[in-house]
Amino acid sequence: MAQVITDKRDVEFVLHEQLEVEKLAKHERFAEFTKKTVDLILSEARNLAVKEMLPVFKIADEEGCKLENGTVKVPEPFHRIYDLFKEGEWIALCDDPKWGGQGMPAAVAQAVKNYFYGANFPFTLTILLSHGAGKLVERFGTEKQKNLFLKKMYNGEWSGTMLLTEPQAGSDVGALTTTAVKNDDGTYSLSGNKIFISSGEHDLVENIIHPVLARIEGAPAGTSGISLFLAPKIWVNDDGSLGEPNDVVCTGIEEKMGIHGSPTCSLTLGGKGQCRGTLLGEENKGMRAMFVMMNEARLDVGMQALGCASASLQNALNYARERVQGRHLLAGGKDAPPVPIIQHPDVRRMLLNMKAYTEGGRSIIYFIGFCEDMIHVSKDPAEITRYQGLIDLLIPIAKGYVSDRAFEVCSQGVQIFGGYGYTKEYPQEQLLRDCKITHIYEGTNGIQAMDLLGRKLGLNKGQPFRDLLTEIRKTVEAAKNLSGLEDLAEKTEAISVELEKTADFIGRMAASDYTLTAFSHAYTFMDVTGDTVTAWMLLWRAVVAAKKLQEGAKSKDTVFYEGQIATARFFINTVLPVTFGKINVILTLDSTATDLVEDAFGGK
Amino acid sequence: MAQVITDKRDVEFVLHEQLEVEKLAKHERFAEFTKKTVDLILSEARNLAVKEMLPVFKIADEEGCKLENGTVKVPEPFHRIYDLFKEGEWIALCDDPKWGGQGMPAAVAQAVKNYFYGANFPFTLTILLSHGAGKLVERFGTEKQKNLFLKKMYNGEWSGTMLLTEPQAGSDVGALTTTAVKNDDGTYSLSGNKIFISSGEHDLVENIIHPVLARIEGAPAGTSGISLFLAPKIWVNDDGSLGEPNDVVCTGIEEKMGIHGSPTCSLTLGGKGQCRGTLLGEENKGMRAMFVMMNEARLDVGMQALGCASASLQNALNYARERVQGRHLLAGGKDAPPVPIIQHPDVRRMLLNMKAYTEGGRSIIYFIGFCEDMIHVSKDPAEITRYQGLIDLLIPIAKGYVSDRAFEVCSQGVQIFGGYGYTKEYPQEQLLRDCKITHIYEGTNGIQAMDLLGRKLGLNKGQPFRDLLTEIRKTVEAAKNLSGLEDLAEKTEAISVELEKTADFIGRMAASDYTLTAFSHAYTFMDVTGDTVTAWMLLWRAVVAAKKLQEGAKSKDTVFYEGQIATARFFINTVLPVTFGKINVILTLDSTATDLVEDAFGGK
Repeated sequence: MAQVITDKRDVEFVLHEQLEVEKLAKHERFAEFTKKTVDLILSEARNLAVKEMLPVFKIADEEGCKLENGTVKVPEPFHRIYDLFKEGEWIALCDDPKWGGQGMPAAVAQAVKNYFYGANFPFTLTILLSHGAGKLVERFGTEKQKNLFLKKMYNGEWSGTMLLTEPQAGSDVGALTTTAVKNDDGTYSLSGNKIFISSGEHDLVENIIHPVLARIEGAPAGTSGISLFLAPKIWVNDDGSLGEPNDVVCTGIEEKMGIHGSPTCSLTLGGKGQCRGTLLGEENKGMRAMFVMMNEARLDVGMQALGCASASLQNALNYARERVQGRHLLAGGKDAPPVPIIQHPDVRRMLLNMKAYTEGGRSIIYFIGFCEDMIHVSKDPAEITRYQGLIDLLIPIAKGYVSDRAFEVCSQGVQIFGGYGYTKEYPQEQLLRDCKITHIYEGTNGIQAMDLLGRKLGLNKGQPFRDLLTEIRKTVEAAKNLSGLEDLAEKTEAISVELEKTADFIGRMAASDYTLTAFSHAYTFMDVTGDTVTAWMLLWRAVVAAKKLQEGAKSKDTVFYEGQIATARFFINTVLPVTFGKINVILTLDSTATDLVEDAFGGK
Repeated sequence: MAQVITDKRDVEFVLHEQLEVEKLAKHERFAEFTKKTVDLILSEARNLAVKEMLPVFKIADEEGCKLENGTVKVPEPFHRIYDLFKEGEWIALCDDPKWGGQGMPAAVAQAVKNYFYGANFPFTLTILLSHGAGKLVERFGTEKQKNLFLKKMYNGEWSGTMLLTEPQAGSDVGALTTTAVKNDDGTYSLSGNKIFISSGEHDLVENIIHPVLARIEGAPAGTSGISLFLAPKIWVNDDGSLGEPNDVVCTGIEEKMGIHGSPTCSLTLGGKGQCRGTLLGEENKGMRAMFVMMNEARLDVGMQALGCASASLQNALNYARERVQGRHLLAGGKDAPPVPIIQHPDVRRMLLNMKAYTEGGRSIIYFIGFCEDMIHVSKDPAEITRYQGLIDLLIPIAKGYVSDRAFEVCSQGVQIFGGYGYTKEYPQEQLLRDCKITHIYEGTNGIQAMDLLGRKLGLNKGQPFRDLLTEIRKTVEAAKNLSGLEDLAEKTEAISVELEKTADFIGRMAASDYTLTAFSHAYTFMDVTGDTVTAWMLLWRAVVAAKKLQEGAKSKDTVFYEGQIATARFFINTVLPVTFGKINVILTLDSTATDLVEDAFGGK
């Protein structure tokens, strides 16, 4: 049967053959996650995705969310899926079983999310946000807070959100004005307006737990005066019973380009002076707490985008194999029969391009999950630091670069379907619309580029960046010794050398008098880094595949492995030359964008 | 006041300063189109666009079209605008006044369309299709057909369409199966199903004239057996009065990603055996006739995309100047005040990128209009051939390349607005959704790339391509002599030399045993050609601007001209290095996409 949502074989390849996650099971923490268990989990996730989530993907887009008397109704079929998620315990995949988590390796969890996001991103968004909010409670909550909230958040009885953005505080979170005033009982009275709150209000659960960023009276301006609070929709009494509604009112939901099944809410806190919250973590350290969760949130966004890309690619592949249109370019005469469009050169180019970015992105994101797992099982502090550095460095790539490329994949996915792709008869246009949000939230991709250049590149004196290059070169060395991969190894090595020079150059420029100009090239630098990391991942895949072929593989596997090597070859030969061009752009350091007077941008 | 829809100053710059359209008025055909008249036309078009069309852009998207009992209702406000279009005679802009046309230079008409498409592309689509259908009647109709239909199509009393696509005949028009059987009275009975028919049925007019591609009984297979017919929705008697409905039934309208105001219809012809049509042109020469109109149709699609890009850019500029968020990157301390986001380096990069592609695209499209005008006024056959060659060569660039870049511009236009850009509160997301169709219809952009490589490059033994290079080098020579443009001239010359080599190479490969592989790089070749043409256009603008600055300009003009030079510099320094990379991709001629066995694409 044709694959849907995402390529099962490729998911398994990354987990079992590229990352070899079953080795994690040697460690106590992951002892139960043998290959058999992992495959069972994947099979269950895939079943849920294919049989329950995918069939309501389009319906939920059409139905959307409705705000009635302060209550938000999500698409009707989401209720059924939500119950299945609760029953199947799919919310706290990697978390401590003590609080209801599944304790799964993060790499495996990414594969699970790949299916869920690919099948129904707008639904899954609610789930994953709940988890993120729960994680904040787990990390920063008091025992009391954990006992009151955590299990119910992780088991899905209640959901969670993230209240950061305000009308005048978007990319600049530090500008927020929501206030917190301490009460005699130790709680805080919260007051302010939040916007763009995903799942800020909905009817899937009886209570919603809102982590809220707010400023305590008298706190310093900017981000260093921001604290984090927990404000439930309905107050939770000390004995765990529900109290009064907590004056968190949904005043509107956004009409959006996509993710219609996910309610994006405007919330007013304390409009009647009755909103109470408890401090989560320490006073004025709210941003720091939030940043701890940022890696997870941003990685999730990358996975959302990749989910869209995965699904778009599978749909495009299935369509291209079935849709008969036009003659083969080399067919003699006009009486030649029409062929499936996968035989047309430009369609092949698009499919292979989609495959390269989807599979490259998959390896990047699962690898980051794998690094998290290694932190958990490693006993060597240096190794832990190394993995954390790789994660920190790669997060802006997973979020910014992967989502950019995923959108292009989805656009090509529409293209393969021709006119049909533009209609709602097929999922391609929805995947494109849904995917666009991933460029924006959890820090726009422009912010990701600044994060990479301004924070991550120089992190720990550049050690994570050097560690990345070391990882790349390990793969290059392995490839050099494999027949048929030598040229790919050389080209990947060449780009890694250029990347290193470029990073050194732009890093120095950013710290010099050319700061503004350097940052006007930050986006291109993110692109170049992303291209190089993608080449590395595809080469790594090719190395694994070439070894398997050397060892002798079954004929179906042989085709798959040859596809892996071909994808690496395609990417390295058709993308990396362009990457070199982008490097030249950075090295030229054109300052036009920085220097131009405002009026000269036009429209005056 | 801030500009909306498109930059008025830039529109005027291209017409009056880059192309110097007033020189056309020296010729009898365009004698009345003095600068004053042209400005009056632009002012009227802009008024109509700003005051009437733009305010209903969003409403029409929400309202969409409805099919009720075989009748399609377009968004209610379109009726009012349609009447204004009829009154203002905005439909047959460039056509023969004998038939109700305005006889306007095509370059000026493109500027008019820039406003119309930028303000309300879904509405304008209906108008422009009517014109295209009318043009077919004008070109291929008998006197009788012209008398019966033409004036009413050009004055908007009736509208027109284009019935090509069928469920199994999309990109491969030759596969169509609609049949035509000759009747005793010389008419033909038509029978078949057509899909994706823009404005195939609607309630703006009392009659719709359908040019229909169909196959006469016994005609050869493929495109050489296709004839063109005129089938009105309601039969038109010889005295011009309306007869019976003509058995053209709308059986459905598409739900689409965008252009919701434009009804995309499925039509059944002759379901009751009662659909009659008259032959338009000669038997079996329908495709040839249709191809004559293809240039206009494809150029229009480029203009549609550019309209979206123009509007997105203006909105983004206005927003970036007003939206205050975040501190200046060089501001000391966190107490520094927030600044308009146009001061942030990455926002500047995006705006300048949007500006370069929008203005470059504008020059490309207006220039093609100008070439059409030169054909009309020229008396030198060689010159006429030269201009026609340039048009033919540039059409796939105007359609394929410009629409690709316009979509990227619209995507960045969403990005500048952050979260707001994803909401329907602002027009940015609609512009992005609407723009996507321009990649698909009138020949997908993949088809454009094949057209460029397979037909246009070798046209007339490559003369048009050489003529293009000659034009580019004229501009380069002019730039070399202008202080401050020398380096830009050199870089543009360098890319034109590389383009020539690349064209020679890929042209030879396409004609060799490497046909398939060459065509798998056709898209990249279109990109490279488009980049080079854009660089040429921006350099040409810079030449004009530099001369004006040398001559001394008013301070407001000075800023505009400096903006022109800066835009050329930005593009040439930040895009052309990447273009060189793409050239290297072509020259490497990687054959992976061609060679890969189908199963290895994955999903099996």
